[in-house]
Amino acid sequence: MRLVTYTVGDSSPRLGAEDGAHVTDLAALAAAAGVELPGDLLSFVRAGADALDTARELLAGAPADRPAGTVHATGEVRLLAPLRPGKIIGIGLNYVEHVAESSRTLDTAKELPDRPVLFGKPATAVTGPGAPILHNAALTAQLDWECELAVVIGRTAYKVSEADAWDHVFGYSIMNDISARDQRRSGQWFFSKGQDSYAPFGPAVVTADEIPDAQALDLSLRVNGDVKQKSNTRHMLFDIPRLIADISSGMTLEPGDVISTGSPSGVGAAQVPPQYLRPGDVVEATVERIGTLTNPVIDAR
Amino acid sequence: MRLVTYTVGDSSPRLGAEDGAHVTDLAALAAAAGVELPGDLLSFVRAGADALDTARELLAGAPADRPAGTVHATGEVRLLAPLRPGKIIGIGLNYVEHVAESSRTLDTAKELPDRPVLFGKPATAVTGPGAPILHNAALTAQLDWECELAVVIGRTAYKVSEADAWDHVFGYSIMNDISARDQRRSGQWFFSKGQDSYAPFGPAVVTADEIPDAQALDLSLRVNGDVKQKSNTRHMLFDIPRLIADISSGMTLEPGDVISTGSPSGVGAAQVPPQYLRPGDVVEATVERIGTLTNPVIDAR
Repeated sequence: MRLVTYTVGDSSPRLGAEDGAHVTDLAALAAAAGVELPGDLLSFVRAGADALDTARELLAGAPADRPAGTVHATGEVRLLAPLRPGKIIGIGLNYVEHVAESSRTLDTAKELPDRPVLFGKPATAVTGPGAPILHNAALTAQLDWECELAVVIGRTAYKVSEADAWDHVFGYSIMNDISARDQRRSGQWFFSKGQDSYAPFGPAVVTADEIPDAQALDLSLRVNGDVKQKSNTRHMLFDIPRLIADISSGMTLEPGDVISTGSPSGVGAAQVPPQYLRPGDVVEATVERIGTLTNPVIDAR
Repeated sequence: MRLVTYTVGDSSPRLGAEDGAHVTDLAALAAAAGVELPGDLLSFVRAGADALDTARELLAGAPADRPAGTVHATGEVRLLAPLRPGKIIGIGLNYVEHVAESSRTLDTAKELPDRPVLFGKPATAVTGPGAPILHNAALTAQLDWECELAVVIGRTAYKVSEADAWDHVFGYSIMNDISARDQRRSGQWFFSKGQDSYAPFGPAVVTADEIPDAQALDLSLRVNGDVKQKSNTRHMLFDIPRLIADISSGMTLEPGDVISTGSPSGVGAAQVPPQYLRPGDVVEATVERIGTLTNPVIDAR
C-alpha cells in the first residue's frame, strides 16, 4: 500500500491510499463501510497490523466501486509530508564512496566507521513533497543535498536483534538530508542538518510488504535535471537490521520514528568544483518502488 | 508557580501546582470552579497566558480552602518528568572552564566556540525525578553527568531577536545531560547523549515570573553526596537570549521544546583520575530556585 497525507481544496490533512490515478480517503472509506480507521498516518502506524488488514480489505475492490467522495484523482490532491516523526535518526557515512568523498571535502575520517554514525534531526525540519527548501544566505553558502532511503518504524523497538529487526519496520519513504555544511558547530551536525525544511520527506510511505528487498533499491538525485547521485541501497555499510539493532541497543525506537539510512556519494561538497544549492534550483530525490521527492529551493532570508 | 506532573496511587499522570507542602490538581481545581484547565503540562504551556492567569486566580486562596480531592500532601505524590518535549536542544561547551577541561579530556577544541555548539537529544531520553539512569556495561564504561539549567519554551520562536527572546520563555527546570563518553560516533554526540534515561528532567517547571534573573542562578551537582560541579548561570558563554536568537535563526522553537543550556566544569571525564557513574550511585543536580533533581544509577544490561 502507498500511503499519503494530502489535502483537497482547503480540507484539513487526510490519510490516503494512492494507486497511481487515485487517492482514496481511508477514514472516509472505512466510515462508509461502518468500520473505523485513523485519519492520520501516525495514528494508523500506531494502530498496527489490524488497521493495515482493514485498509487492505476495504481497498480490495476497484476505485470506481467506492462510495462517492472517498476517491480523488491524484492530480486533484496536494501531498504533504506523510507524518511528523517523534524522532529522525540520520546515519552519516553509510556508503563507502561517500566516506571517501567526505574525508576529502568535509573533515571526516578516511577510515570506514566501525559503528553506525548516528545523528538527530528534529521534527520541525520536516517538509513535504513540492514544499520549498529554505535558502538563507545570511546563514549558509553551502546548502547541500543527500538522497536517502527512509525507514519508518512500525513497532516499538528496544534491544532488538538483527534477526528480529525487520518485524519493526512499517514501511519506507524518501528523505533528502539537507545540510548547511558551514553550520556545523564544533563538529556537531545538528544545526547544519536540523534547520526548518532541511528534511524533505515523502512523497509516500510504501508498506514493507510491497518492498521485497529494501537492500536492493536504486536511488538517485538530480539538481535541475542533472544526475548528481546514483547508487543502490545494497551498498550501505551498515544495513537496516544492523542499524535498528544498534540504535535500539540503547534508544527506544517508537512507531512513526524515521531512520534516514545515509547518503551515497555525489553530494555537492564533493563536486569539482563544489556545487551548492541556490534559490531557483529544483532537487529531485528518487528511490526505486517509492517514487520521487521534488523540492524547489527558495530565497528565505 | 511551580508546575509538576505527578501520580497519586495508581492514577494517570496529572498536572499539579506545588507549594512546598501541597500539590494541587489544577484541572480538578478548575473543574470545581466551573472553568477549564488542561490536565497535562504540555497542553498548559500551549494554552498560553490565559491558562496561567486562570491557574493563578484559582490558586490565590489557601490550600485548606480548596475543594476536597484537589489537594495532596507533597509526600503522597510521585513526580514524573514535567513534560515530553517536542525537541531537546543541548548546548555544548557553554561554560569557559568546561571548555578547558573538555579540551584536555574529550578531544574538543581548546578555543572558545564562536557560535553556540548545538546538539539534539530525543524525547525518548527523558526520565523523571527519582527514576533510574540506565547503566549498560555492554555499551559504556564512561557514563558521565552534567548539571544544566533547562529553558522551557512557551511561545513559538522563529527568527526572534535577542531583545524579544525572553518573551518566548515559559519557565525553567533542571536537566542532567547524561553522556556515555565512549559512544560518540565519528565525533557526533547524539548516541552518546541520547540513550533512554540520559535526560533526567525536573523536578518542576518554575514559571519565568518566579525567576527574577535566570542568568544569576547557582547550580551544582553531587555524586553520592560529594560535590562535583558548582557554578552559576552567569558564567554561560552564550546567554539565554543569544541561544534563543541563534537557534531560532534557522530552527523553529515550539511550546514545550527544551534548551538545555550547557554544563559547568566538573564532569566525570575531567576528574583526576576520571570518575564515571556506576550502578548504585546517586546523582543530585541542583539549580537555585528550582530544586534538586535526584536519580539513582542502576545496572541495566
